[in-house]
Amino acid sequence: MPSLIHVEQHFTATELVRDIVIGMSDGLTVPFALAAGLSGATTASGLVVTAGLAEIVAGSIAMGLGGYLAARTDAEHYTSERQREVDEVQQVPDREEEEIVEIFRGYGLTTEQAAPIAAALRANPKQWVDFMMRFELGLEEPEPARARSSALTIALSYIGGGLIPLFPYMIFSQVSTALVLSACVTLAALFVFGYVKGYFTGIPPLRGALQTVVVGGLAAAAAFALARLLG
Amino acid sequence: MPSLIHVEQHFTATELVRDIVIGMSDGLTVPFALAAGLSGATTASGLVVTAGLAEIVAGSIAMGLGGYLAARTDAEHYTSERQREVDEVQQVPDREEEEIVEIFRGYGLTTEQAAPIAAALRANPKQWVDFMMRFELGLEEPEPARARSSALTIALSYIGGGLIPLFPYMIFSQVSTALVLSACVTLAALFVFGYVKGYFTGIPPLRGALQTVVVGGLAAAAAFALARLLG
Repeated sequence: MPSLIHVEQHFTATELVRDIVIGMSDGLTVPFALAAGLSGATTASGLVVTAGLAEIVAGSIAMGLGGYLAARTDAEHYTSERQREVDEVQQVPDREEEEIVEIFRGYGLTTEQAAPIAAALRANPKQWVDFMMRFELGLEEPEPARARSSALTIALSYIGGGLIPLFPYMIFSQVSTALVLSACVTLAALFVFGYVKGYFTGIPPLRGALQTVVVGGLAAAAAFALARLLG
Repeated sequence: MPSLIHVEQHFTATELVRDIVIGMSDGLTVPFALAAGLSGATTASGLVVTAGLAEIVAGSIAMGLGGYLAARTDAEHYTSERQREVDEVQQVPDREEEEIVEIFRGYGLTTEQAAPIAAALRANPKQWVDFMMRFELGLEEPEPARARSSALTIALSYIGGGLIPLFPYMIFSQVSTALVLSACVTLAALFVFGYVKGYFTGIPPLRGALQTVVVGGLAAAAAFALARLLG
């Protein structure tokens, strides 16, 4: 299978899944660790639930809205860099042409071999700018609509993921019971999501699963130990 | 100033500052919102401090270790994609050559104009693979050492940022007093970091500052409102 097709599949069919996994594995990790930490300091499971929900609200807003604004900044950065290339192509075309030749000389072409490419690009300013954006600056045109839906998916998945470790604290009033159940359910969920994440990012799924479990488990253990020390 | 030099400066001199700003503005946002949220549900400032510190520990591990493992995955993904290109260049060189021609046809070159580029690249397999990685797949070679130091910087900055909103709760036993001081100090810090962030990402600093304040303020207000509702 040609690589180009493979890459395109990778970025279209799985983007939704990827956003869900990103939001959910983060949502599983931090609220889980916070709830575990508070279990080391309080016996009131209602308080763990309140703190956990506050964290989920804060985290999903920070991740969703923060991510959305960052994507919008990227889009503006692209637009302003593009305008600069448009100006340069008009005002200093000879220097831009030298830059093209330099790019290809870096890949072992001689000046004579690279010159026709520069000449051909010069004939079509729009495609010349496209070329400079991609090959000189390494910038891809961002999709603003995609940023919005991606931010929303990540935020909702963060909320969904965060409710998993909190669920046991909503059922059991005894914190120690809730903690054990929360740890079992969450580590299992982290395992599944790490597995799926590994599958979609191309690393061995089992190793992806173990990585996610280790990060979540370590964060929760450290938070628990610290709260125990203080409480 | 040629763009190439500008871009290189952008990515070397400011990477440390960028990591500090990333870690610190996230560290300011979520622990601030959590502390504000808990202030709506409890009168014990000691508990806010414990929950806040547990969140900082969890968040910095998730962000630092999670980020480090993600960077390592990227590096492995690059290595495996590179190996695939190496194989393809050896096994199906004609098809790879067609792919090069296709790339340049997309920028308005004719098959005749693109053919010499393909021929020149074919003469040097290593540079051919370099070319395919960058221009066909759009992948840059990751720096593993940089990923490690970057993850550490982000984690430490998250801790540093997170201590700012918690500081007032460590001094004042009355939660309502601590909350007011925490909000003032943190929103001021968010403003400064948003300003610096704007400066380094190339958006108008004042707008960057307002964005950071709005995300942090909104997260804190939502967390507070939810906790009040439940508490």
